[in-house]
Amino acid sequence: LTQKTPNEFELIHQLWAPLTLGAPGAFGLKDDVAQLPPSAFGQNVTCDQVIEGTHFLPDDPLDLVAKRLVRRNLSDLVAKGCRPLGAFLTLAWPRTRPISQMTDFAKGLGEDLTNLCGNCPLYGGDTSTSAGPLVATLFLVGEPLTASKRPVLRSGARPGDHVYVTGVIGDAYLGLQVRLGQENSNRLEVCQSFSMAPVPTALEMAGPIARFAHASIDVSDGLLADATHLVTNSKLTMELALECLPLSSEASAWVKAAESPLSGLLKLATGGDDYQALICLPKEHEVEFARIAQSLGTRLTKVGRCVEGDSLTLSYLGQPVKMPAITGWRL
Amino acid sequence: LTQKTPNEFELIHQLWAPLTLGAPGAFGLKDDVAQLPPSAFGQNVTCDQVIEGTHFLPDDPLDLVAKRLVRRNLSDLVAKGCRPLGAFLTLAWPRTRPISQMTDFAKGLGEDLTNLCGNCPLYGGDTSTSAGPLVATLFLVGEPLTASKRPVLRSGARPGDHVYVTGVIGDAYLGLQVRLGQENSNRLEVCQSFSMAPVPTALEMAGPIARFAHASIDVSDGLLADATHLVTNSKLTMELALECLPLSSEASAWVKAAESPLSGLLKLATGGDDYQALICLPKEHEVEFARIAQSLGTRLTKVGRCVEGDSLTLSYLGQPVKMPAITGWRL
Repeated sequence: LTQKTPNEFELIHQLWAPLTLGAPGAFGLKDDVAQLPPSAFGQNVTCDQVIEGTHFLPDDPLDLVAKRLVRRNLSDLVAKGCRPLGAFLTLAWPRTRPISQMTDFAKGLGEDLTNLCGNCPLYGGDTSTSAGPLVATLFLVGEPLTASKRPVLRSGARPGDHVYVTGVIGDAYLGLQVRLGQENSNRLEVCQSFSMAPVPTALEMAGPIARFAHASIDVSDGLLADATHLVTNSKLTMELALECLPLSSEASAWVKAAESPLSGLLKLATGGDDYQALICLPKEHEVEFARIAQSLGTRLTKVGRCVEGDSLTLSYLGQPVKMPAITGWRL
Repeated sequence: LTQKTPNEFELIHQLWAPLTLGAPGAFGLKDDVAQLPPSAFGQNVTCDQVIEGTHFLPDDPLDLVAKRLVRRNLSDLVAKGCRPLGAFLTLAWPRTRPISQMTDFAKGLGEDLTNLCGNCPLYGGDTSTSAGPLVATLFLVGEPLTASKRPVLRSGARPGDHVYVTGVIGDAYLGLQVRLGQENSNRLEVCQSFSMAPVPTALEMAGPIARFAHASIDVSDGLLADATHLVTNSKLTMELALECLPLSSEASAWVKAAESPLSGLLKLATGGDDYQALICLPKEHEVEFARIAQSLGTRLTKVGRCVEGDSLTLSYLGQPVKMPAITGWRL
């Protein structure tokens, strides 16, 4: 039994109420429900959690943990052609964590909701104490930017589509390996801090994805695992060329130094937490899509194509590659 | 690092997909976002969590834990004059809990979403493993049944309103005391199982609350703590008569046997987890409101009134009672 002191209420309002950005339906976080903006077409919702010891390490700074949480969810919405409208947060807060760390968490959350999510208000939530690891859950409500007002699903890809990925793949995986002590390279220092809160596909990409993509998914479990979801739901074959994977200069150097470049690429393609979008695009729109991505400063790389069939197939420099037994990891 | 095996995906779809009740916007839980039904006025959202060791005991059966989670949230919506439309669930699942217990959890969740929440579909969620206690979070989306299409808030009470409470107060508190070994009475056995998943105000009461109440709140922190929220937000004085508190026969007998009846009543009025509604009702509608409650089989009890002022005041058999230092508990 823990007493809910007035001070705790005050602290919560001090930390969280500013994040409502004055949204009327948040009622200043002074009531028991929130009211979302009206939606003639039905809003889209994603929810994900970050768990201490599972998705982040106990010593990670909590502003970055909050950002990781926002980015996991934002990446889902953007890949579906949606933009965020409102957020809800629940925290299972360990009794042993100083309350100053909650301030850090709120700071990181607020920065990302404002800067990455286009001034997305916090509408509500719940904070309770726990004897265990910190668990933070975000519920992100968005609206689809498609003409049909439906999200871009996993199931819409068609034979003939080309397959694109935004950003780079593998930096979050490499950074985590360093932090776990399984890779030891000063050259991966950039990846290390990146891996705590990987930068997701930019919000501005939601519009072009909504306008042009047949199917799309965010790369979070691992590129091969997420590609498999597209294959299964769209009922076709996707051919991926591993040498095309977009890599940072650090990851590229790491692959070159790996036991074999192919084994390195397979690790990056199954590592997860990339928060990028894997997009199936009709050929006739790829020029315009690439032009828009370039104007937004988003790196966009063609990594494969869709054909008739029912499987994910891999190649490296024109040679077929056996699918690894493990296609993705979950932290 | 935990591998996300295909079997785990299959299990999740086996357990959770049936709870979508075929809602089209759930996409069979096979995609990354859900699409809520359209809403011209803006939907209402409440979110609450249950944490092992904080809100329930490690040995509590998980079907009842799931029901407790649904009821915490449902009680919030009903007190606000809203009916549920869709649910989202996240689970931080301890690696040491057998997966058979997840089946129990899904069973309890499904039963309550169907029977208590009016066939409310599950739209989505997330399950991840954790090293710590079980944390389950529910986001419940609803629609207000008020003419204004806004929820009944804490802030609408007016001097002259009469104050009502649904159901009974204190059984969940007494049941918990027995389970914690702090009360030992066979006569409280009923309370003991009740306290694991207290029965909330019936969904059918959302309509009359929406139609007639000036303000309303669910009693979850403790009657006096929640009454204080109404007082603070409505900026008036609420006078509560403790001898009017509606009690079960078990609680009534326990109060009579307490050190003093007043001390017993104060414990019940601050115990929390009642999941009942505390309602401020204009006098001119109380007859009709009471008639509807009766026709729905809902016990409804007048416990006080609102007057000009800025505080919560208590009386017992006409004598003023000092406000206890602790007005509510949070489990």
